[in-house]
Formats: sequence, structure tokens, C-alpha cells
Amino acid sequence: MKSKEKVGIIKINNGIIQEVEDEVVVEKIVNIYVNKEFYSSLMCTPEEKIELAIGFLFAEGVISSMESIKSIVELSENLICAILNYDLEEDFQSRRALTSGCAKGSMDLSIFEENNMKPIAISYQHAAHDILLMMKEFNHRSLLFKQTGGVHSCAICSNNSIHYFSEDIGRHNALDKVIGKALLKNTALEDKLLMTTGRISSDIAAKAAKAGIPIIVSHSAPTDMALNIARKANITMIGFARGRRMSIYCGSDRIIY
Amino acid sequence: MKSKEKVGIIKINNGIIQEVEDEVVVEKIVNIYVNKEFYSSLMCTPEEKIELAIGFLFAEGVISSMESIKSIVELSENLICAILNYDLEEDFQSRRALTSGCAKGSMDLSIFEENNMKPIAISYQHAAHDILLMMKEFNHRSLLFKQTGGVHSCAICSNNSIHYFSEDIGRHNALDKVIGKALLKNTALEDKLLMTTGRISSDIAAKAAKAGIPIIVSHSAPTDMALNIARKANITMIGFARGRRMSIYCGSDRIIY
Repeated sequence: MKSKEKVGIIKINNGIIQEVEDEVVVEKIVNIYVNKEFYSSLMCTPEEKIELAIGFLFAEGVISSMESIKSIVELSENLICAILNYDLEEDFQSRRALTSGCAKGSMDLSIFEENNMKPIAISYQHAAHDILLMMKEFNHRSLLFKQTGGVHSCAICSNNSIHYFSEDIGRHNALDKVIGKALLKNTALEDKLLMTTGRISSDIAAKAAKAGIPIIVSHSAPTDMALNIARKANITMIGFARGRRMSIYCGSDRIIY
Repeated sequence: MKSKEKVGIIKINNGIIQEVEDEVVVEKIVNIYVNKEFYSSLMCTPEEKIELAIGFLFAEGVISSMESIKSIVELSENLICAILNYDLEEDFQSRRALTSGCAKGSMDLSIFEENNMKPIAISYQHAAHDILLMMKEFNHRSLLFKQTGGVHSCAICSNNSIHYFSEDIGRHNALDKVIGKALLKNTALEDKLLMTTGRISSDIAAKAAKAGIPIIVSHSAPTDMALNIARKANITMIGFARGRRMSIYCGSDRIIY
């Protein structure tokens, strides 16, 4: 499915008016079914839908790894069906119902409630200089953004290469996609960095914590709630990583200056 | 409640490492109850919560104007309770359940399904030059953004003044807040413009269509689905309004060059 669409627009620039062709990012509804029952609808960029569904179901606590999944298939353009190796607990939808109304993301709030956030050990350190170099490479990768201006990007990196890269109209989707890819390949995340173009709100931090990613690096700013999650999960949170500058909000022990 | 919080950070700039104090935007959960039953949780910037709830319930189709509401009150820091002048239809939550899982917004998808999108008449025209001047003023208004870098702004404007202005960590919340303010003051919207710092996804376009706002002007890009909604609702969609340039995606009849 196409991720961008050509449209005719009227461009005004310095008083010059032109009819030109431009590209806009495509947005689609994808319905996710779990064990043959409707689970959720996502508005997303229609690429890497299987990876998106895997990352989303992981963040929601529906699956804990690829071993939870018997099969996952794209039945049609907007329909992903996952069959698990177990039944979902009966209270799953009701626990979720409390949180899924959250207008800015369907977040599994159990991360706050159940004391199930294990602090991530400090096993690896990264040089600030290397992180800024990676951020530069990450920024260069976002082709769709350059073409349409309408998406966010996420990447899972080590200190010298980008392992997984995804784009989506939603910050959360881009993150679900890269985590989905890592789960598919069974990639260890405890030595990786998460790069994102988007702001770090609580749900982004919670998704990273759930995946055990020790460092989040953003082009943009975190919220206070995201910082609280990062502190609890012992995540290193870096914002405003641009050019030669960055702000380290917590977990600076992982950074070598 | 405070909308920003001071935190100690480590700032690296051009190799210079400093411990400084910075500000991050506050993110809170607000629970909305309708007729004494839980309706939804929103992650938001904890300002203008009543306005947020009103705009959100309007976008959801729960209320059609302030006349729908008998009372609305902030019972505690994170609890808004609205009592309506009528009972909610029994199928309301189930109709919503299908869509509320949408990970990037709890959108009332009935706008696509029920053919209930009335095209907005072209009653007013605005000069492109005036729109760019308004966008400039709008950009200057976002204090919280300047302080924290973590929020989006929305405004409802006429061609010479900003009537309502709001900021929030969520694009959708900022829009709900300004629409909530307009509903509270019973402000006619058919001659107004909506300004936003954020990308225009389908839910933003749908919320504007529902409120009958004829022109959307964004600093950023629309998605194809948002454009489809705009065309159906006869909304003028302008993106990349920056400095002396803008892109008109549809509805150019309302713009005087």
C-alpha cells in the first residue's frame, strides 16, 4: 500500500502563486483482531502493519514475546489477525477499557499501578559524542518526512549503527513498529538506544520501559510524567539532541562525556 | 495546577557540560465522568480542564452545545464530572468502543459512516496575506512551548484577532480546549479560522468539521485522510503556513490572493 499520495495544491511563496503537485502522507485505519475477536483500531501509515501490531500488542501487555503468537497475518488491507498460544484473560478488555479512552494514546496504565516496572540495569555506557553522531544519521534517514512533512520517525540503534527504523503519522506507532521489528528478530534491547523525532510523553516512556530499552534520545522535549517513568525504570532520558547539543534529564551514569 | 515543572538537567553544548535548571511540561491524567459514569481518561496539560472536557465531549458527539449540559464541575484535581440534560443512549459506549482503541486518538468515526458531515458554506473570504500575519501572531503566543518545547498550540481566530488560544501536550487536546471555549461563549465559528502548530491528521480535520470551522491553517502537513474529510466538509485546508509561504490543499475559493 502506498505511504504517500500525490495531490494538486496552490503554493504561495513570497507573493508568487503556483499550482503544483505535492505529496501528502497516507493515513489508514488498521483493525487488529486477537484470537478472532476485535481488539483495537489504529490510525497509521499503512506500512509495516504486522510489525506495528506486534509492537502494539506487546506494549498493551497482550503478548510478552513472539512465543506468545501462534500466527499473525494481514488478512486484508486494513485487517491484522493474531492468534495467540493462549486465551486472553477475561478481564483484559475491561482493564483496558479504563485506559483506552485516553485521547492521545491507548496506554496500558498498569505500568503505574502494578509495580511491574523493573529498573533497567546500567550495563552499557555510550559517549555523548557518539549519540549525537547517531542522531545526525537518524535525522538523515527520514525520507517520508522529507517528502511529506507529516510523519515521526523512531529507530533502535547501537552506538555505531541503526538496527531498526520506522516512520508513521503517530509517534506511538513509529515506536511500536521498531519494537515490533526487534521482537520479530529476537533482538536484545538492553544495550540499545531509542531515537525519536517526537516529544516524549508518558506513553512513549512507558512503551520503552516495557521493552527494556535503557536510553531514549529525542529531537524534542519530555513531559514530567515521562521523566517520572524514566526515573522509576532507570532509563536515561535525553532531549533536544540537535547538532552538538543535548539535555540529559536523568540517568546520566550511562553517558560518557 | 502547574503546567510546568522545574528539573535539574545536564546540558551539553559544543562540548561544554553544565548542570542547569530547566522546565518540562506537566502531563496529568484527567478522568471524565458523564452522568456519574466513567466516560474517558485523557492525558493532558492540566490547564483549562473544563474547556477540554466540553470540547472533547462535543467532538465525541456526547453533547451538541452547552444546552446539553446541566452542570460540569472539577470535583478534584483529576476529575471532571458532567451531568447532561438527557441520558446517553445505551449504545453510545459500544459505538465508541469500536473506535476508542485507536491508539492515536479516541475519534468518533461516525463522521465517516453516518453521512452526517454537512459541507460548510463559503460565506467568508480571507486574504492570504492576513492569514500569514495571523499565523505569525499565533506563533508568538505559545509561551509554554517556548519554555518547555513540549506542547502544541491551537487558536480560533478571525482575520484580525485571536479569539481563543490553548496549549497542550496533545494536538487534539489543544483543539478540544479552544472549541470548548467557543462553545462556552456560544461563539459563531462559521467565519473563523483554526490555527494549529500540529500536523493535521484525520481526527483533527473531523473535530474541525464537527465544529463547523471553515478554514484550518497549520504550521505543518495534513494527511490524505484529513484532506478527504476537508473536501467532504468543504473545509479550506492550508499547510506549511510559515513566514511568507503557505500551501493550499483544498477549498481555495475562500482565499483571496
